[in-house]
Amino acid sequence: MRAVCASARAYSSSANLGPGFDVLAVAHTSYYDEVTACYNEKGDRAVEVVEVAGPFAEGSGGAASARRAAEELLAKLGLRGRVELSVYKGVPPGRGLGSSGASAAAAVAALSSILGQRIARSELVYVAGLGETEAAGTPHFDNVAASLLGGFVLVTTIGNRLIAKQVKPNKPLFFAILVPSEAPQKQKTKFMRSVIPQSVEVSLAARNFGGKTALMVLALLEGDLELLGELMMSDEVVERARARYINCYWAVREAALSMGAPGVSLSGAGPSMIALAWSETRASMIAKAMLDAYRECGGEAETRIATLAPGALELVKSMG
Amino acid sequence: MRAVCASARAYSSSANLGPGFDVLAVAHTSYYDEVTACYNEKGDRAVEVVEVAGPFAEGSGGAASARRAAEELLAKLGLRGRVELSVYKGVPPGRGLGSSGASAAAAVAALSSILGQRIARSELVYVAGLGETEAAGTPHFDNVAASLLGGFVLVTTIGNRLIAKQVKPNKPLFFAILVPSEAPQKQKTKFMRSVIPQSVEVSLAARNFGGKTALMVLALLEGDLELLGELMMSDEVVERARARYINCYWAVREAALSMGAPGVSLSGAGPSMIALAWSETRASMIAKAMLDAYRECGGEAETRIATLAPGALELVKSMG
Repeated sequence: MRAVCASARAYSSSANLGPGFDVLAVAHTSYYDEVTACYNEKGDRAVEVVEVAGPFAEGSGGAASARRAAEELLAKLGLRGRVELSVYKGVPPGRGLGSSGASAAAAVAALSSILGQRIARSELVYVAGLGETEAAGTPHFDNVAASLLGGFVLVTTIGNRLIAKQVKPNKPLFFAILVPSEAPQKQKTKFMRSVIPQSVEVSLAARNFGGKTALMVLALLEGDLELLGELMMSDEVVERARARYINCYWAVREAALSMGAPGVSLSGAGPSMIALAWSETRASMIAKAMLDAYRECGGEAETRIATLAPGALELVKSMG
Repeated sequence: MRAVCASARAYSSSANLGPGFDVLAVAHTSYYDEVTACYNEKGDRAVEVVEVAGPFAEGSGGAASARRAAEELLAKLGLRGRVELSVYKGVPPGRGLGSSGASAAAAVAALSSILGQRIARSELVYVAGLGETEAAGTPHFDNVAASLLGGFVLVTTIGNRLIAKQVKPNKPLFFAILVPSEAPQKQKTKFMRSVIPQSVEVSLAARNFGGKTALMVLALLEGDLELLGELMMSDEVVERARARYINCYWAVREAALSMGAPGVSLSGAGPSMIALAWSETRASMIAKAMLDAYRECGGEAETRIATLAPGALELVKSMG
């Protein structure tokens, strides 16, 4: 019985960023998961999580996402054999930081490096997204795409084909992230989807999702953080509906802006909030202002200063 | 009484291009309008069209659009004085080629160059869009933005602020355009808006308008014509609803693809259709195939081979 192991790190991510609902996300260096996968080609197809460690070992859907993602990858490749996963869970769950997506991305990156077959990056995103389904209910590909590919990503489907592409900003940029400490609401993602209007007028949809998301891509590529920030705050459909369910949303937003953030939005479905910054120093000041505002309105939180994270596919270590 | 004159040329344009409904458009060298504006600062505010010439002098809303755009520009700047416009109308109206937008763009480019005040490009687009309202009923900024700024443009609004930006492809690209000869339907634009569903599910909207339009921008910037073409043909909301009202839509589309076009879509609200091509030679072959298919199913049309057009703002000639 020959077992081969590899481990991969996958960072936390923030999806949506205002009008980029379901299609835009960014991986950032705030938190990470790590998954070690060992594969033994003998035996029937079986994936087992043998260890879960780290600050969020308990109470997260990370292990289940990692296992399911590994199963989907084996199934896709038509492979038998036994996979053992060890999961280090460092991304806090239920905070809108792509926690289960990070576990799935790390599992797929580690395992695919062992299996050694050429698989398109979009296919890996698809498989990891199916893994995340285990935690999120319905598949979403934005967080896993960011954690797997790194930095900003754009994801959509044409027919049945998933397309995931990186969007590389031409300037360094930083984030200040506020992560509320309160225990996450049960079924938070599901609830936060239920508060969004079911349908939207076509001309509003084209302006809000089409025009603004496309301009966000252009602003990123041109390094126009002012425009990017303005667009992050311009959503008229999704974030507008969700804001009322987020404690201290307006106070935190105002605090970030008053400290010079070009923009701030919910991270995913919240409750975390993410602000842009021109520099690491400025990001620290913005994070402090966001935390002060959050405490002042009665909450407790931690903050992170972050920059763009590399993707799990770049963060694989082979273990012989 | 001192009169100063300038003329500007504005090219035809194609809006929407599939999922880019209302926000994406491209100016191309198929046809052009020209407007000469003469300004005399004496007297009350008055704009008059003194001459309309060219193949579409009769029966187009171009003169009205040019006049209204000039009035809006004077009003915006708070200027009195008399403007005389001569309009050369070369863009066929009612074909989905931005005909009235081209007249408005040419008028604004010519007149603003005389007035010599610094006005942001987005403001000029806004004023020209109000001019086009004269013909189209409600203001749309996609065609005028393309004719005014040139090439591919992205347009959206944040609150009351219009943002219009060029998207510059990193490779040369060409178009084959089929322009049906049949007299345009009355109120064509209005009718073609009425066949679109009024509202759309949010997740479909995000995927169709958000994800796909943003990917089109990325594909353009990366010169990935295959992906751009695939995206052009992937609309699930607008073009899907309109296709059934366009004669020979599927036959023309199939003909373009079979000749190697990476993509093809309605131009604006149709009935013209626009196909992408890698080269001018290939564009000729595609145009011929489209025309053959259109004739075979009983229609008559003309075709154009085109590339990206410069904007009217770059095509101003001062006349002392």
